[in-house]
Amino acid sequence: MEKSILVKSLYRNTNDYLDKTVKISGWIRTLRSSNAFGFIEVNDGSFFKNVQIVFDSKLDNFKEVSKLPISSSIAVTGKLVATPDAKQPFEIHAEEISIEGMSSSDFPLQKKRHTFEYLRTIAHLRPRSNAFSAVFRVRSVAAYAIHKFFNERNFVYVHTPLITGSDCEGAGEMFRVSTLDPKNPPLAENGAVDYSKDFFGKETNLTVSGQLNGECYALAFRNIYTFGPTFRAENSNTARHAAEFWMIEPEMAFADLQDNMELAEDMLKYVIKYVMEQCPEELAFFNQFIDKGLLERLNHVVSSDFGRVTYTEAVNLLKNSQKEFEYPVEWGIDLQTEHERYLTEEIFKKPVFVIDYPKEIKAFYMKLNEDGKTVAAMDCLVPGIGEIIGGSQREEKLDLLEKRLEELNLNKEDYWWYLELRKYGETVHSGYGLGFERLIMYITGMSNIRDVIPFPRTTGQCEF
Amino acid sequence: MEKSILVKSLYRNTNDYLDKTVKISGWIRTLRSSNAFGFIEVNDGSFFKNVQIVFDSKLDNFKEVSKLPISSSIAVTGKLVATPDAKQPFEIHAEEISIEGMSSSDFPLQKKRHTFEYLRTIAHLRPRSNAFSAVFRVRSVAAYAIHKFFNERNFVYVHTPLITGSDCEGAGEMFRVSTLDPKNPPLAENGAVDYSKDFFGKETNLTVSGQLNGECYALAFRNIYTFGPTFRAENSNTARHAAEFWMIEPEMAFADLQDNMELAEDMLKYVIKYVMEQCPEELAFFNQFIDKGLLERLNHVVSSDFGRVTYTEAVNLLKNSQKEFEYPVEWGIDLQTEHERYLTEEIFKKPVFVIDYPKEIKAFYMKLNEDGKTVAAMDCLVPGIGEIIGGSQREEKLDLLEKRLEELNLNKEDYWWYLELRKYGETVHSGYGLGFERLIMYITGMSNIRDVIPFPRTTGQCEF
Repeated sequence: MEKSILVKSLYRNTNDYLDKTVKISGWIRTLRSSNAFGFIEVNDGSFFKNVQIVFDSKLDNFKEVSKLPISSSIAVTGKLVATPDAKQPFEIHAEEISIEGMSSSDFPLQKKRHTFEYLRTIAHLRPRSNAFSAVFRVRSVAAYAIHKFFNERNFVYVHTPLITGSDCEGAGEMFRVSTLDPKNPPLAENGAVDYSKDFFGKETNLTVSGQLNGECYALAFRNIYTFGPTFRAENSNTARHAAEFWMIEPEMAFADLQDNMELAEDMLKYVIKYVMEQCPEELAFFNQFIDKGLLERLNHVVSSDFGRVTYTEAVNLLKNSQKEFEYPVEWGIDLQTEHERYLTEEIFKKPVFVIDYPKEIKAFYMKLNEDGKTVAAMDCLVPGIGEIIGGSQREEKLDLLEKRLEELNLNKEDYWWYLELRKYGETVHSGYGLGFERLIMYITGMSNIRDVIPFPRTTGQCEF
Repeated sequence: MEKSILVKSLYRNTNDYLDKTVKISGWIRTLRSSNAFGFIEVNDGSFFKNVQIVFDSKLDNFKEVSKLPISSSIAVTGKLVATPDAKQPFEIHAEEISIEGMSSSDFPLQKKRHTFEYLRTIAHLRPRSNAFSAVFRVRSVAAYAIHKFFNERNFVYVHTPLITGSDCEGAGEMFRVSTLDPKNPPLAENGAVDYSKDFFGKETNLTVSGQLNGECYALAFRNIYTFGPTFRAENSNTARHAAEFWMIEPEMAFADLQDNMELAEDMLKYVIKYVMEQCPEELAFFNQFIDKGLLERLNHVVSSDFGRVTYTEAVNLLKNSQKEFEYPVEWGIDLQTEHERYLTEEIFKKPVFVIDYPKEIKAFYMKLNEDGKTVAAMDCLVPGIGEIIGGSQREEKLDLLEKRLEELNLNKEDYWWYLELRKYGETVHSGYGLGFERLIMYITGMSNIRDVIPFPRTTGQCEF
């Protein structure tokens, strides 16, 4: 086929094309016509904005074109003409419009506004709307920014496994993965399901974190990150939880909690800046239609130093705040979203790291501090969301890690390879996890996780 | 912590550091010492090569350092000195060596060679060996090259779902995903397992391809790609099959089979070139120790135009070749690896696209050619591997696609959203799938897929 050029090129390199004949392809967003001429707004998905096409009765197929339904796909050849007095910078004066695929006239995304709830039921078509075109372009650009950031710092990208035979992670409920007969599974002598007959010869689940595997690679490559899907079989039907989501988990050897916070802050700023540079049209749209304070907030984040506060200080700040919380604040509690948001939105008015949490409310692998009662954990809280990053320095001492497993009644044998990392050249090391969807919600202002995942999987929902 | 610099920086920007005091951190690969001085080869994982450390009895902890076991982690401060007469370009004359973590002396990766089979049993430690350090650095660099390639061409990166409720793909056996009681699942009135009580309210599996979801996004963004994990529950215990692997699936609207082949060829050449530029040390290692013809083959690939041949021509070439194949060649058969390798290695002596396969041996969604018996499929075959890419132009005509579903006794209702893509602005569109592990095997010369996946999952194997 003769290649059509991307609409993005017309917008980004307009001067290369002005007053020349260009060919574009795309889908009709709007069309109005009279007996003599007409206007089409075409979008080709390469760019947020449409191109206006002007056509008239000199076209052979003027009548057919005039009646094309929304979402029909066309290829347009014509001259690109500057329109200094119009809203859009240029338009194409069509010399030829070929109809690639005429849409049925009942295309569900007509010009009127739809609720996001309704659009979820047509997840195969919603990326053709302005809002979702913007969301998923930003998602793609942000994903690239993540890879670019870690690549520039020489982090090795590791694909940690999704199917896991270990129940080590303890970070949530898991989905079972099996090929056994679901109705009549083979049973062992003791009456339990005989997983030795399953595909992997053992019980297997979908992972809730790549961290433990990631640590193996950090202790070989020094700096690594993962970026892949993660699963939670939690029955929580909220706007912030999905059963399948993507997570970024960097891990650094020879790095302590301070280094960890620096990396997290640099990464968040880098990604936000990159999206602001690459997607100004999308962010302007979100700022206007989704979240009026978005651009101000993003600008504030990239230009401010994140706050840092210990858990103990944070608890005191909250207790002294005179604010009535639904869950009362006491040293030892796990901070709730209301507390996190109050800290970052009201007290610090910017992103803030809370560090050194009580060991009882954090995972077994976190580094015990010298006080014997807190661990070198860090949560990064951001305005509007609450926790966006959770991480820690890891316990690198074999004896302390083993003691912690015992205290929690965890089986040391299950962790043999994780413990061996401490036996063969332990180092101070640290890492964190960033939920990618939370980041996209933060950057776009979208308030439901279902609207930043192309085909979301949540309790009771697995369509498309 | 005072930051140590990456060994990669010392190698890539040597002149910035020569005759200056530097601090590095890493793990001991080799150590030999006398009463007065010693040599340590340190690797920090940021670079394939080690740094040689020279130390002597002026160190406070000379005795302890002298006896450090392999794999102990240390931080070294000292002057970087050029060594023009030695094998390595420089060494560090240690002023201080701090012992971060002394390894147990039974570290399994001693200097002697180990079999790859054995190293699979210590997958948590094998990235500290030369071969796996090289493999997994190349894997990371190749993954970045994929993203960079598609980003430069304005492809939108789409995260298609892994848990799927549709059995549409028909590309292989699937793993069931469930939270039902495995021993006593709830039963419906008809006696079957009642999946309406399962987490998603229906039976769900792990996806075998993101293509159908990807097409939805191509018909909104024009050019998209996926890069994520994919699953096959096939009981095939070969060196080329894994139950969990990563796949890249680009999809382009307004693009036919020719465009598809161009993209695939450009992509392969781009990734190979990028890895050759970024990882010359690793590729030299593979060429010397894993696969003597590797560099010659890779150079040949990036500099030659890929061959193109129809299936019908390919069958004739094979039949006329006088070669005795295990599986006899007749028009209509699915080409076996022996046929594919003969075509690419003996007949074309370079990568070759085979196109226009009989429709009976290809998937329902492939575009029917005008002859009525072949489809616009393409397989890319490469020397040493066979098929590395499979793709096609997609059937964009609603009536033809529905007819094909009927012929194959597939249920149209299951494909309602996929069919709607043809109803609302169909376009000619095309895409392909590239198995990422096959690509890494091709670039490194490694011959077992278990050795290019950090923690492989295969029949009966799900460790770590």
